[in-house]
Amino acid sequence: MFRSRLLAPGPVETAPEVGLALAGPQLHHRSPEARAIVKRVRELLAAAYGLPPSAGWEVLVLTASGTGAMEAAIASLVPAGLEVVTLSAGKFGERWRDMALALGLRVHHRGFGWGSAVPPEAVGELLRAHPEAQALVVTHSETSTGTLHDLESIAAEARAANPEALLVVDAVTSLGVSELRPLEWGLDAVVSGSQKGVGGPPGLGFVALSPRAVARLESRAVTGPYYLDLRRELKAQRGGETAYTPAINLVASLLPGLEKLEAAGLEATWREKKALTEAVTAAGLALGCRAYSSRPSPACATLVPPAPATGRDVVKALLNRGARAQDGQDAIKDTIVRLSFMGHFDRYDALAVAGLLEEALEDCGVRVERGAGVAAAWAVLGAARPQPVAARR
Amino acid sequence: MFRSRLLAPGPVETAPEVGLALAGPQLHHRSPEARAIVKRVRELLAAAYGLPPSAGWEVLVLTASGTGAMEAAIASLVPAGLEVVTLSAGKFGERWRDMALALGLRVHHRGFGWGSAVPPEAVGELLRAHPEAQALVVTHSETSTGTLHDLESIAAEARAANPEALLVVDAVTSLGVSELRPLEWGLDAVVSGSQKGVGGPPGLGFVALSPRAVARLESRAVTGPYYLDLRRELKAQRGGETAYTPAINLVASLLPGLEKLEAAGLEATWREKKALTEAVTAAGLALGCRAYSSRPSPACATLVPPAPATGRDVVKALLNRGARAQDGQDAIKDTIVRLSFMGHFDRYDALAVAGLLEEALEDCGVRVERGAGVAAAWAVLGAARPQPVAARR
Repeated sequence: MFRSRLLAPGPVETAPEVGLALAGPQLHHRSPEARAIVKRVRELLAAAYGLPPSAGWEVLVLTASGTGAMEAAIASLVPAGLEVVTLSAGKFGERWRDMALALGLRVHHRGFGWGSAVPPEAVGELLRAHPEAQALVVTHSETSTGTLHDLESIAAEARAANPEALLVVDAVTSLGVSELRPLEWGLDAVVSGSQKGVGGPPGLGFVALSPRAVARLESRAVTGPYYLDLRRELKAQRGGETAYTPAINLVASLLPGLEKLEAAGLEATWREKKALTEAVTAAGLALGCRAYSSRPSPACATLVPPAPATGRDVVKALLNRGARAQDGQDAIKDTIVRLSFMGHFDRYDALAVAGLLEEALEDCGVRVERGAGVAAAWAVLGAARPQPVAARR
Repeated sequence: MFRSRLLAPGPVETAPEVGLALAGPQLHHRSPEARAIVKRVRELLAAAYGLPPSAGWEVLVLTASGTGAMEAAIASLVPAGLEVVTLSAGKFGERWRDMALALGLRVHHRGFGWGSAVPPEAVGELLRAHPEAQALVVTHSETSTGTLHDLESIAAEARAANPEALLVVDAVTSLGVSELRPLEWGLDAVVSGSQKGVGGPPGLGFVALSPRAVARLESRAVTGPYYLDLRRELKAQRGGETAYTPAINLVASLLPGLEKLEAAGLEATWREKKALTEAVTAAGLALGCRAYSSRPSPACATLVPPAPATGRDVVKALLNRGARAQDGQDAIKDTIVRLSFMGHFDRYDALAVAGLLEEALEDCGVRVERGAGVAAAWAVLGAARPQPVAARR
């Protein structure tokens, strides 16, 4: 057995310190040690969201996947029977539409083609057409297509069209990966998960809530979800507790990734993740692939390989050479290959993956010019060349 | 820092192998390795529930606490607006009433005093008085009071009163701890969690579903929960997948505890947990404590310490001597001390804890006869003396 690089867009490669944190003596969640960990994780998560303490936001940690955290946000903020606007251009956007329908909301949905980005002006149109909508639900980084939505413009359109509607955002693969400014952009509930940009194992979801989302929560007194009720979590987590028994090992294991993010700085991390993903994309293009998305996300390089290779062939070839990438979902299962650097990777890993991709495409019968992929990746990485860390200290 | 024994009724002390499983290379949940782990864990869990494959039950693993798994069972099996019967004699029973109300069910509830056990005949009365009830929701081992309900009789009463009502059971602290026979007793949805009798870390919930519960699930097509919708999980887990990204590290970490349970055998484990808990209870009684519960659960010894010590004093004194026990909840917070052996403990640990309890009570100003607690515990353990393992091989 060789070591298999985990290049899927989550779960991601984790730092060795994460394993140590997971395997420590079993903590009891009602102990001072555990309370200190929950508090520190909430503080570091707020920093990862770019939220200073003075902003008055609350970041909640839930024992649930990102999907559970999205449901917590939607169901806790919008009572059943009321209206929401949802937009999609991929699987996750469609999931939020389906979820809102399952929760008994009146859903106004508009879908765009997979691989395209939701045009911000469509958001304004839809919100003006449905002035009773309580919330807009959008995906920032659409992981199924590797598309980064223009959330800043979408939020601005939404605010102009209906200042009262809450902005509920799926930032599962954008937190700690691409520019995300909940405060400056006027977002209200920003959801993410542990196994993506913060570099932890899967099993935890996060919801960052604006002061007006908190006020909306606290004024609600209706039936709804129980386990995923953010009102109970808010009350408990403000006191350093959680409403129910949390996956405390997983919470503790977030510290190494969050501390690394804090030390590196958000903007530098966004630049680095973008450079790594662009480098591997450049390698793919130089080797005959085309980019699937019209507006690529730094969460994953999303490539359509040249004939005769399919996405699934390339995934298999990569696996045979020591890397687990991911194919597509649903209708594009066989069309694309997705390669992500959200986890514990540096720029030299991107070079390594360019080499892997070059040889995997060759294995699939693609005629490649030896070295073209590696050279293209290295050119991108060279352009983004940061100072050595030691020189910065 | 000394090692602190984790004697709380969950999370529990875990075996060293659990830490190793947690800290292994990060698995991707859509890999053959992860699928094999999920499959094996579901098989071993079914065995822990005493369910042979031929019984046609399904055991689902959810990334959520036991509370989340209870919600999944109730909300997936009973559509909002319909009736359920709930009974309580402690905090968890009351939680299921509150949860059912929050989920929009019409709830017929009867509560009994904390420390007492729900009388089985009350179940029959309540179900006959409300013939439209779709389900009975009961707690097997009520962890807040250390009470084991007579689930066999409760189930028999319920079946006699209304054969159509589903029996939804909180077995969070009885699975792998006390006699539990879902098949023989005619239960329908039996909920548990990872951080109790199966000896794992917190963060996973389980639901075992009878064939008729599965049929009820599959015939339902209504709005309801999304993340906690057991229909989606059933479909996915039958194929070795999960509906959403699971906490795969936690799933893998269940294997050591489940394998140990399988090797030791269910009946021997039930006997051992009962003997350990009775030994420490005997120690407490010999030292002037009284038993809080009228029908003690093997999940935890629940003791009212003699004056001048309060439950909280004893918890603090135990902590100062290297053991984290747990005080009470809500109105009995300061009344009781709870000591559990659900995790990675053997009979000699019970003797150690008897010694700890003796000295902790002394620290609290209780006049104890030196050696009385240890002798009482040792007498109980001697009576239950099993053969050495080597001799059985």
